[in-house]
Amino acid sequence: MGGDFAPQAVVEGVFEALEAFSDLTVLLVGQPEKIKPFLKRRRAKRLEIVPASQVVAMDEAPIGALRSKPDSSIRKAFDLVKSGEAQAVVSAGNSGAVVATGLFVLGRLAGVSRPAIATVLPTVKENAVLIDAGANVDCKPHHLLQFAHMGAVFAREILSRSDPKVGLLSIGEEGGKGNTLVKRTHKLLSSSALNYVGNIEGRDIYRGEVDVIVCDGFVGNVCLKLSEGLAEALMAMMLEEVRCKRSARLGFILARNALGSFKRRIDWRERGGAPLLGVEGVVIIGHGRSDARAIRNAIRTACDFVQQEVVSRLKEALAQLPSPSSVVSER
Amino acid sequence: MGGDFAPQAVVEGVFEALEAFSDLTVLLVGQPEKIKPFLKRRRAKRLEIVPASQVVAMDEAPIGALRSKPDSSIRKAFDLVKSGEAQAVVSAGNSGAVVATGLFVLGRLAGVSRPAIATVLPTVKENAVLIDAGANVDCKPHHLLQFAHMGAVFAREILSRSDPKVGLLSIGEEGGKGNTLVKRTHKLLSSSALNYVGNIEGRDIYRGEVDVIVCDGFVGNVCLKLSEGLAEALMAMMLEEVRCKRSARLGFILARNALGSFKRRIDWRERGGAPLLGVEGVVIIGHGRSDARAIRNAIRTACDFVQQEVVSRLKEALAQLPSPSSVVSER
Repeated sequence: MGGDFAPQAVVEGVFEALEAFSDLTVLLVGQPEKIKPFLKRRRAKRLEIVPASQVVAMDEAPIGALRSKPDSSIRKAFDLVKSGEAQAVVSAGNSGAVVATGLFVLGRLAGVSRPAIATVLPTVKENAVLIDAGANVDCKPHHLLQFAHMGAVFAREILSRSDPKVGLLSIGEEGGKGNTLVKRTHKLLSSSALNYVGNIEGRDIYRGEVDVIVCDGFVGNVCLKLSEGLAEALMAMMLEEVRCKRSARLGFILARNALGSFKRRIDWRERGGAPLLGVEGVVIIGHGRSDARAIRNAIRTACDFVQQEVVSRLKEALAQLPSPSSVVSER
Repeated sequence: MGGDFAPQAVVEGVFEALEAFSDLTVLLVGQPEKIKPFLKRRRAKRLEIVPASQVVAMDEAPIGALRSKPDSSIRKAFDLVKSGEAQAVVSAGNSGAVVATGLFVLGRLAGVSRPAIATVLPTVKENAVLIDAGANVDCKPHHLLQFAHMGAVFAREILSRSDPKVGLLSIGEEGGKGNTLVKRTHKLLSSSALNYVGNIEGRDIYRGEVDVIVCDGFVGNVCLKLSEGLAEALMAMMLEEVRCKRSARLGFILARNALGSFKRRIDWRERGGAPLLGVEGVVIIGHGRSDARAIRNAIRTACDFVQQEVVSRLKEALAQLPSPSSVVSER
């Protein structure tokens, strides 16, 4: 039921995924009367509708929705994972509600204080993962340490980096630079078992020198949206520039294609969904604007997570961490 | 003595400025034996060398430099403003040291807890000002309120906006979205006399819908450097794309020009210096990479500030603010 084009885009994406992945079974959770018209009499053995009477609106307050809508499609989907009937949740719905409900129903992995959203970014070299992309707006140093460990597992298992390089987003490369949160986190990361390369600056994000970019969810979300907006603004500025130059049209088309492709690449949620790491289960958050292709890709990411046993890998990595309380006392 | 190309670039920029602005007098502060070779026997009635025996290195710790180098060129320059012999300081040196020394020597304006750096950004419409660009990494809500007021004065006096629209950088447009700092600041701004339009997101920065973008110095600095790095990365990605396509070369050149011009426009310190607002005097911070043109432009900005009496305008605006203590108790 979630996303700007639900349930049509979701249903279409599910059919694409069923065709592409032969070992996939999909439980479509939501209001059957809203979903069925889009099935268009298609049938699939590996598709089942699980009724849920309520829908969380895209702009609804997450905690309020969690309390007041016990039969929402989001809640029901997580219940299916909790009971073992499903192995992953994919949603393009209200992402705050997905995070809150996932945390409430599935619970956190041992060693995780706050689950975080991981987002894959294109760089001039290979893809990198930024964590947290927006789940936690106010963080402590030990949260960022946990994000770093989860990001490293993601980079190993999903991006296939053998020894992922981890960077801490700050405003200067020296360890003494940054705000209080970053300075304290720098100390924790320096004495961790991670391949920590130190602080990186905003200008380094797209240089591809690190595999994992660690930041709090406020800064991470601002960075993502700024990148998206800047790509759009550059296109508008170029359009302005070529308006009077006929000869430059071809150039504009090229530039527009490059920027457009960057914009799509940057929005990982449109490409494959952004995983919520640190909860007891696989959760993939799609973009609210998800079309059928985006839904299909998010389902593919969910399959990858299940097959790579990413949650088990996360557990192993996090089990080796000092407990948050001992980290706090070390500060 | 400050900047990567000092003193040569500074001296050349000063001569350009002296030629351009007939009512300008420049006091060049630094080591005469280092400066004189670059004068190349040129003379100017409106140019004077003021000796300072010490130099703050670009990577030196600001507070340490302030304590251990009482005869640094930065310190001496501020002393000249303090004593009334000069009306503005322009420096491309260690910006942390410029901020710390400016604060120490000149003091803060009444109503200002923390001076902040304002940076002008290009947008798809008109230029906007982002404040704070990096002077304050850990902020309280009343600091951001003061930044907003200072940014509005800047937008009125320097960008000629009659009723500047002020936006608060957050991760959602609704007032309830953001971290604790932003949520509390939103309340202060909502009840202020400013033309406050509410939260804006990272993607809105370059859309030009607001004239003043308010954020803490950590987030502001990350945004600036991310923008710079993204423009570079996009260029690299496009270069990759056209490598195999001869027909696309022309397009690449256009795109490269547009991105390069954006990169220069984004770095206001290269264009006209970034003012430090909230100290008792005019302080313009140039980029460490400043060439002669950048120095000339920073001097022009200093002249604009003096002629527009921006410091007096700031004092008037800030005098009407509730005191920080009463703001704090309101939270």
